[in-house]
Amino acid sequence: MIYELTVTQFIKTLKNMDSFFEKAAGYADSKKFDVDVLLQSRLAPDQFNLIRQVQIACDTAKLGASRLTGKAAPSNDDSEKTLAEVKARIQSTIAYLESFKPEDYKNAATATITQPRWEGKTLTGNEYVIHHMIPNLYFHVTTAYAILRHNGVDVGKKDFLGAMPYKLP
Amino acid sequence: MIYELTVTQFIKTLKNMDSFFEKAAGYADSKKFDVDVLLQSRLAPDQFNLIRQVQIACDTAKLGASRLTGKAAPSNDDSEKTLAEVKARIQSTIAYLESFKPEDYKNAATATITQPRWEGKTLTGNEYVIHHMIPNLYFHVTTAYAILRHNGVDVGKKDFLGAMPYKLP
Repeated sequence: MIYELTVTQFIKTLKNMDSFFEKAAGYADSKKFDVDVLLQSRLAPDQFNLIRQVQIACDTAKLGASRLTGKAAPSNDDSEKTLAEVKARIQSTIAYLESFKPEDYKNAATATITQPRWEGKTLTGNEYVIHHMIPNLYFHVTTAYAILRHNGVDVGKKDFLGAMPYKLP
Repeated sequence: MIYELTVTQFIKTLKNMDSFFEKAAGYADSKKFDVDVLLQSRLAPDQFNLIRQVQIACDTAKLGASRLTGKAAPSNDDSEKTLAEVKARIQSTIAYLESFKPEDYKNAATATITQPRWEGKTLTGNEYVIHHMIPNLYFHVTTAYAILRHNGVDVGKKDFLGAMPYKLP
C-alpha cells in the first residue's frame, strides 16, 4: 500500500498542484500583473513563500521515495525563481516518482529510516510514511493552494483532490 | 494499514488541531480580542470559515470510519459557534475514533464505499482512503492552521505534525 500512497497518489497530487499554477498564470494574465508576485507570496511574514512550499512538497516526495527504497535521489539546488522553473521542478519530481515500480517497495514498510538531522534516531518505513511523509506532503500542497486562494486565484477543492477512480453502477 | 492511517494517525492529527485552538485562545487573550473573531475568519470571502473547516475535518474522519467498517456514526448538527463548542466537536470525534479496534478494519480495504451524492458510483475502501479521506482530512486541518497562521497565531509545523515515534540509537 505504500507504493499507492506515496508514488501513484503523490504523482496525482503533484499534477493537481501543477494545475494550481495554470490557474495562477491565467489569473495574472487576466489581471495584467506579473505572476512572480504570486510566487513570492506568503500568508504570514515569517512563513515560507510559495516557491519554497513547492520545493518542500517536491522534496518530501522525492526524498521519501529514495529513503524507502534505498535508491539515490537526484539533487536540486532550490534555485527556482520563475513560473516555468517552478513547473519544471514539479515535473522533474513526477518523472522521478514514475521511475519506481511497486516491487521497489517490497521491503519499504519495515525499512529503517534515518537522516543526519535525526542524530541516530530511526523510524520504520511505515512510521515514516504515516507520521511524516503523507501529512507533510499534503501540508505543503495545501499551503501552496491557500496562498493562491488568498490572492484571488480561482482554485477549488476539486483541483486539490483531482478525479476519483469511481466505478459506475 | 488503514487502521493506522485513518484511526490512530487521524486521532493524533485531530489532537494536533486542538492544540492550534489552545494557541488561538492564548493569542486572543494576550491581544484582548474575542477569539470568536478567529472562528469566523477565512482566507478568501468565498471560502468556508474556520469553524466549518473543523467540522469538515471531523466529518471526514467520522464518516470515513463509519463507511469503512459499516458501523453507524453519531450525527452532528454543525451548530458550533464558540471555542468551547469547536473543541468539544474535535474531542467527540476523537472519542468516536477511539471506539474502533484494528479488527473492525479487517475487510475495510476491499469494502464497497458509496454515498448518496455519488449517485450509485463506488470506490473500494483502499481507493476511498487514498484518494479522498487522507487528502481531505489534511486539506481541512492545514486550512484551519493557515487561517490561524495568517491571523497571527504562533502555530508552527511541529504543531501540525506532532511528535515522531522515534527509536533511539
